[in-house]
Amino acid sequence: MALIYKADPERGKRWQELFARHAPDIEFRQWPDIGNPDEIRYMLAWQPPTAIDTRFPALQVLFATSAGVDQFDARQLPAGLPVVRMLDPAIERGMTEYASFAALWLHRRMYHYAQQQHSAQWQAHALIPASQRRIGILGLGRLGLAIATHLSGYGFQVSGWSRRRQQHAKIDCYAGKDELAPFLAHSDILFCVLPLTDTTRDILDRHLFDQLPSGASLVNIGRGEHLVEADLLDALDREQLSAAVIDVLRDEPAAHDHPFWQHARILMTPHIAAMTQPDSAFAILLDNIRRHQRGEPMVGTIDRQQGY
Amino acid sequence: MALIYKADPERGKRWQELFARHAPDIEFRQWPDIGNPDEIRYMLAWQPPTAIDTRFPALQVLFATSAGVDQFDARQLPAGLPVVRMLDPAIERGMTEYASFAALWLHRRMYHYAQQQHSAQWQAHALIPASQRRIGILGLGRLGLAIATHLSGYGFQVSGWSRRRQQHAKIDCYAGKDELAPFLAHSDILFCVLPLTDTTRDILDRHLFDQLPSGASLVNIGRGEHLVEADLLDALDREQLSAAVIDVLRDEPAAHDHPFWQHARILMTPHIAAMTQPDSAFAILLDNIRRHQRGEPMVGTIDRQQGY
Repeated sequence: MALIYKADPERGKRWQELFARHAPDIEFRQWPDIGNPDEIRYMLAWQPPTAIDTRFPALQVLFATSAGVDQFDARQLPAGLPVVRMLDPAIERGMTEYASFAALWLHRRMYHYAQQQHSAQWQAHALIPASQRRIGILGLGRLGLAIATHLSGYGFQVSGWSRRRQQHAKIDCYAGKDELAPFLAHSDILFCVLPLTDTTRDILDRHLFDQLPSGASLVNIGRGEHLVEADLLDALDREQLSAAVIDVLRDEPAAHDHPFWQHARILMTPHIAAMTQPDSAFAILLDNIRRHQRGEPMVGTIDRQQGY
Repeated sequence: MALIYKADPERGKRWQELFARHAPDIEFRQWPDIGNPDEIRYMLAWQPPTAIDTRFPALQVLFATSAGVDQFDARQLPAGLPVVRMLDPAIERGMTEYASFAALWLHRRMYHYAQQQHSAQWQAHALIPASQRRIGILGLGRLGLAIATHLSGYGFQVSGWSRRRQQHAKIDCYAGKDELAPFLAHSDILFCVLPLTDTTRDILDRHLFDQLPSGASLVNIGRGEHLVEADLLDALDREQLSAAVIDVLRDEPAAHDHPFWQHARILMTPHIAAMTQPDSAFAILLDNIRRHQRGEPMVGTIDRQQGY
């Protein structure tokens, strides 16, 4: 019985060590060395291969290395195959660190100070207290909620928007299509932490930006396809938006001539907000494998209808 | 009876409004319009004028607009004049925000990603968990402790060094000259939040940098005179230090040709980590004035021997 791993080879070595030490009954194989495909019961992948059902006839569960699974082409996957997302606490911690960094970069206008440094200009600007800064979190899933809770600790006014109504202490909760506009009107700094679905694709567009307060800022740590990139450039040009922090792009890696690279008010990072860490993720994955072997429900199983 | 204000004129307007509304018995005057100096009982200043005793014979208390008072020339001040530092909670909040930003900038190697962006390079680097990152806070006064406590919330390993022994939950406390070396050896990211005194002046020098782990980083939010600037440049050149975040300089504003402006691994900001906010500071100041009028001890009075 074997598991095939198809993701970052660097971290693959560490996964291999962890399996060898803690679950020697499960043979760990790393893509492309699949060996006899009939022995593969589990797959752990960032991006599964095509024709998965014919190539791995004995496959029982597809585990994602990531918190979101929108990069999977659901039409390529057998309808009955359980798909499980990764609930590694390191992802939550990494996202919270990055979100906190991005909020402070924008709140304290560090993009502006960085520009001033570049032109050797020593000029302080008024400091707006966190209590007067409104932060909006689009998407109140596990990650969005962790970010919202952390940011409220600074004294920011934090609100969140989700499809279905939620209630959380210290977070103003908005829900559904009708409450998107009032939510946006209260977001000086908007975070996108949505799952990518057909309804959220391209949600960060001109129409949405124009509903934010003038001079608002954007942080995209969702998926690249949430953002209409030309509309962000346009909103920055019009000064409807002041600045942005972008960790994900429609096409990664970014082309050498991508206009975000040299934009003074866009901080762009190469999809690093959070990374699955084998050392913390292994226990989560193994627990799910053991649950599956005992016929118990796994934690983080995707609703194939909803897509998340 | 009057108070003379000698600090940022911009914020002076707000102080004036607050006095007019809440303490109309105290006439607020803004430098240089001192009026009749015999009527001046209180001074609120970032930097008091020279010959204060002969120019303001009726002066009873000197209030600083800042948390530290080292910018005052103590020899110029009458020995019996009470000097009171500003304990505005906005300073603590501003410092905590800035320190958190600086810690994440260095911890997540954002200075490196900013450089990569500049050269259009999409390359992720391993993410070190906060639990494996050691942060050292030089100075465990009110501000240092607030910063240490906040940073421990991320899961960083936080230690602190102070002159006298302290004990705090979740912070490894080092004390005195003998424990400086072991404290430094455990500081991947070193924060300087010390008061400036004759013993702490120039403390951030080559000798200190060489006691940090190789590749450590520095944040100076103390005073410019804590840092030997040439030694920082040298330590960065030698790669003994990886990066620095600098908010204070020996000579402010920085000269146009200061070498920190264009250094790729130094983020320099124009002394903006924290700012006294009249709206939160007014109540603190007025409470001290009323205490003084009733003959009660004031909060934040400086020990003129120690200098802080």
